[in-house]
Amino acid sequence: MKKLINKAEDFARETIEGIVLAHPESLKMLNENHHCVVRADEKKQGKVAIATGGGSGHLPLFLGYVGKGLADGVSVGNVFASPSAEVMHDIDKAIHAGAGVLHLYGNYGGDIMNFGMAADLAEMEDIEVTEVLGCDDVASAPKGKESKRRGVAGLLFAYKIAGAAAEDMLSLAEVTRVAQKTVDNTRTMGVALTPCIVPEAGKATFSIGEDEMEIGMGIHGEPGINRTKLKPIDEVVAEITNKILSDLSFEDGSEVSVLVNGLGGTPKEELYIAYRQVYKILQGKGIKIYRKYIGEYATSLEMAGMSVSLLRLDDELKKYIDRPCYSPFFEQSR
Amino acid sequence: MKKLINKAEDFARETIEGIVLAHPESLKMLNENHHCVVRADEKKQGKVAIATGGGSGHLPLFLGYVGKGLADGVSVGNVFASPSAEVMHDIDKAIHAGAGVLHLYGNYGGDIMNFGMAADLAEMEDIEVTEVLGCDDVASAPKGKESKRRGVAGLLFAYKIAGAAAEDMLSLAEVTRVAQKTVDNTRTMGVALTPCIVPEAGKATFSIGEDEMEIGMGIHGEPGINRTKLKPIDEVVAEITNKILSDLSFEDGSEVSVLVNGLGGTPKEELYIAYRQVYKILQGKGIKIYRKYIGEYATSLEMAGMSVSLLRLDDELKKYIDRPCYSPFFEQSR
Repeated sequence: MKKLINKAEDFARETIEGIVLAHPESLKMLNENHHCVVRADEKKQGKVAIATGGGSGHLPLFLGYVGKGLADGVSVGNVFASPSAEVMHDIDKAIHAGAGVLHLYGNYGGDIMNFGMAADLAEMEDIEVTEVLGCDDVASAPKGKESKRRGVAGLLFAYKIAGAAAEDMLSLAEVTRVAQKTVDNTRTMGVALTPCIVPEAGKATFSIGEDEMEIGMGIHGEPGINRTKLKPIDEVVAEITNKILSDLSFEDGSEVSVLVNGLGGTPKEELYIAYRQVYKILQGKGIKIYRKYIGEYATSLEMAGMSVSLLRLDDELKKYIDRPCYSPFFEQSR
Repeated sequence: MKKLINKAEDFARETIEGIVLAHPESLKMLNENHHCVVRADEKKQGKVAIATGGGSGHLPLFLGYVGKGLADGVSVGNVFASPSAEVMHDIDKAIHAGAGVLHLYGNYGGDIMNFGMAADLAEMEDIEVTEVLGCDDVASAPKGKESKRRGVAGLLFAYKIAGAAAEDMLSLAEVTRVAQKTVDNTRTMGVALTPCIVPEAGKATFSIGEDEMEIGMGIHGEPGINRTKLKPIDEVVAEITNKILSDLSFEDGSEVSVLVNGLGGTPKEELYIAYRQVYKILQGKGIKIYRKYIGEYATSLEMAGMSVSLLRLDDELKKYIDRPCYSPFFEQSR
């Protein structure tokens, strides 16, 4: 296991300590508990609060999307493990500003159970809670079973848009509607070339041949839909993009936002070669790219691979995706 | 070789094509030549122009530092190879706005030769050219032989500060002085855990044991100063930081900017664990951290490893490092 770490069991805590030391003007721990991180700036009374959370090992996901025009607090689990309902409840109480809390997170069993318990705890304290689950990974369940799909990099769009809607002082029902609409219009598929190693486990999350790749693999190493020999990236991106386009109807002249996401170990150069091919495919179909994100947005430690996400836009989503936002991990000023 | 690419010989060109397709409002090719990339916005007459350049494979270096408040044009070589004097000259002519051109780049033999020839060509066309070389890597030559040192991640500081000074309409002599002062006050040292593979070579740049790391290794795999068994990151960061601090005098109460840079394959989590230790060491010595950068700023394809850079600040450098800047790869709005 080649990692730049201290003790494996300290990995998540030391990561969060480093982040809070680096960005005290933006992020702070609650109760000196590294599982609970919230915005450091003053709460805006009457604004809908957005809580997220999930396992560590995916930076910038989830913590990196806590900031102005984004989420307000995050529950931080150990690597690839759900945080507890108790810390989720502590976050809800801390960020609630009189207008309710949206739980916005990825569609994973442990997180659903714990966020559900946290919602029950909130109800007992008269904090209204709604929930939207990212489930953008088309490789993880067939069309028609969208609610069974895993949440992956496409969550970025939901944070961006729901965060902007909340900043606009929309009601909890409206912020929830806009977040759900974003999820409903987001599709992602990825490819993995190498596994990653969870520090405490000390061994690879899966094994794969030196000349193989797996298309559709999840960000925790969940099985994909097609293990093949290495192929040129243009072929891989075409397979991914066409699968996404066949899953959601895009009309000639429709507008999309594109996210090409690196899983941690993939050079930026390769992500731009991938974007080049996405661009050509969409251009060939008359689909316009409205705003694009290329880089590491949701990772899996040092895993090599990438994913492509498309968000189908309408005027409302365009308005919110264009708004500025700021976190130490994700800044949009134009 | 596990890479998401098409043909190895197309790697650099396809990368640049993807970048220019993604960011046409910010960057454009000259003469449809992917070796020449300049700012897409209007030139500001009378502003000193800054040209940089170097081999591909280091994104965001070098191309990512072309933008507002940064450099104006970049010559792009093949992977780890210098661009030619001819493309450097084309860049100089394209970005010159009547106030001369600063060549700002890393201290490597091929680049020095080619930028030197480009400077001669510029002189024949009455374009005044000055030169500042990044040479921040303390592992690459001993104290007293600073001019022999390689330029690595610390170049970020020189782009940021020289770019801000040029945006302030300082003269060529003044922009050059400020850039040189930045270089003179910047020190970097890194550690590598794995090699990278240059696409056209198809094999690792060096070999290293499964339980080894090399401290002081260069970003092209140049030998470091100490190959050891894997050690806890706190020990590695202490060794690096103390080496830097012994190379440049820092007084109690002095202020520095910190850069913790990932080499391409290292998770952000590990970079923050490294920052945590840098913070503790500097705090222990009464050195104040004024502004910090943590992420991938100068990479070596998929190499696992990281570096720490310190810039010793004075009021003038603080003024310029604080200025906003924008490129698609490096945005500072606050």
